[in-house]
Amino acid sequence: MEIVVAKHMGFCGGVKRAVEMARGTAEAADGRVFTWGPLIHNPQVVQRLERAGVHVADTLDDLHGDAFVVSAYGVEHAVLDAAKARGMRVVDATCPVVIRAHSLAFKLVEEGYQLVVVGDHGHPEMVTLKEVLQDKVTIVHDRAEAAQVKLRGRVAVMSQTTQSQENFRQIVGDLSLRTKELKVVNTLCPAITVRQEEAEKMVEAVDALVVVGGHHSANTTRLWEIGRAHTVPTYHIEVADELKAEWFAGVRQVGVMSGASTPDWIIAEVIQRLDAFGAADPVQVDS
Amino acid sequence: MEIVVAKHMGFCGGVKRAVEMARGTAEAADGRVFTWGPLIHNPQVVQRLERAGVHVADTLDDLHGDAFVVSAYGVEHAVLDAAKARGMRVVDATCPVVIRAHSLAFKLVEEGYQLVVVGDHGHPEMVTLKEVLQDKVTIVHDRAEAAQVKLRGRVAVMSQTTQSQENFRQIVGDLSLRTKELKVVNTLCPAITVRQEEAEKMVEAVDALVVVGGHHSANTTRLWEIGRAHTVPTYHIEVADELKAEWFAGVRQVGVMSGASTPDWIIAEVIQRLDAFGAADPVQVDS
Repeated sequence: MEIVVAKHMGFCGGVKRAVEMARGTAEAADGRVFTWGPLIHNPQVVQRLERAGVHVADTLDDLHGDAFVVSAYGVEHAVLDAAKARGMRVVDATCPVVIRAHSLAFKLVEEGYQLVVVGDHGHPEMVTLKEVLQDKVTIVHDRAEAAQVKLRGRVAVMSQTTQSQENFRQIVGDLSLRTKELKVVNTLCPAITVRQEEAEKMVEAVDALVVVGGHHSANTTRLWEIGRAHTVPTYHIEVADELKAEWFAGVRQVGVMSGASTPDWIIAEVIQRLDAFGAADPVQVDS
Repeated sequence: MEIVVAKHMGFCGGVKRAVEMARGTAEAADGRVFTWGPLIHNPQVVQRLERAGVHVADTLDDLHGDAFVVSAYGVEHAVLDAAKARGMRVVDATCPVVIRAHSLAFKLVEEGYQLVVVGDHGHPEMVTLKEVLQDKVTIVHDRAEAAQVKLRGRVAVMSQTTQSQENFRQIVGDLSLRTKELKVVNTLCPAITVRQEEAEKMVEAVDALVVVGGHHSANTTRLWEIGRAHTVPTYHIEVADELKAEWFAGVRQVGVMSGASTPDWIIAEVIQRLDAFGAADPVQVDS
């Protein structure tokens, strides 16, 4: 079995930066260091950070100690205020691409646009946006939801940074027919879209696709959706142990991709495991 | 055979206005009256106008007489200047929707946008736009062409007024992924798009579709394309004589639609002919 590894793998710049900031903060801290929710959507990385002294707060009461590290997606003001009120030093690890997208959103609302954002309900990036802009922003997850939005006056549309290109493309097209004038601001993260484009190509070439990344990771889920849409058997796993040998019986070429919050060490374990399956594969097929 | 006639039939407002203006001009004229190219894209109407005194100039030398009537799509400046130079009175029958679209195009270029227009190469509406804006406008006919356009800086996209909604929707979506910011100006004519939407519904309900309109009519061709895309047998005819009885053998429900430059009298003839086929139909099927 041949293993085809994607060109764009492992941490993106924003995740790398957040992990390094959190780790550095813990090393230099005099007291406890907290995040609100996971720093990034990869439980294995979050566990390692925990061991390095970066703790995840479950309640506002947990927020005490030396420093508060803002997660890569940003954080709600209420939480940030609570951390500050308890004298915690704030270290902002919000991804610069998310910061840019949010500031563009505020600007569009200030300019009087009705703002539609293509995103996942409940994703921290959308929750923080909604917290500030409230009813001035409408988050839509799919075309059906977008079709329900009452449009009035000047309309602008943008997206969660980890949104699917194809979903954004379709919704922008739909809105363009329902408005006299539409402002489209493309806030898709280039580091994410380049992986989606690679996935679109890879699914044409392989018999099976393994997507490695946190089960709650939006950008990893997008890669899995692309495989599923092309009807290539596609497996979204977080760690190598989830792999099953029988998935690869008869598979000649397997593609391996990763989300932007997947660390190199997990990718290495996955490739090693697939390699082992590959060696065993002919035996299994013949028996 | 049941005949289902679309709700939106016959001349749209812009065509009606142009025909009335041309006819009125001919009635009141002291000398000859000319258009450059057909007034609208329906040869039967143009023939009737010819008999009423509205002639089609083939060369610039033809332009002489009392009045020059600008066609519904507009006219090139060179032609207009020639008509004026020969002392002809200019009667502007350009469709108001086209005038609005063109003035929006000029504004976008003035504002510094790179302008992409989704349209048919060679259609008078595009030719006149290209004449004025030259290399400041890029006309694209389909997604493949749009993909070739080099985008730089601020990009705006609009459409020929008689463009297909679906084609515009797809190209807008594609461009939105290739730009940081895209201004979408929807210049599709509402009187045209309402027919396209009706066609989308009608093809789901009928066994065959007859689209009546000039073979060079862009908006009629769109309706035919919708039928073809849904694999319903679809026939684009200009006059009732083109109908063939064998097209309707076994057809229980036939839809009839018309382009926006199709006169009522042709529609009436088509329905009458289909009615006659319908009466004969059971006999043909049984024999």
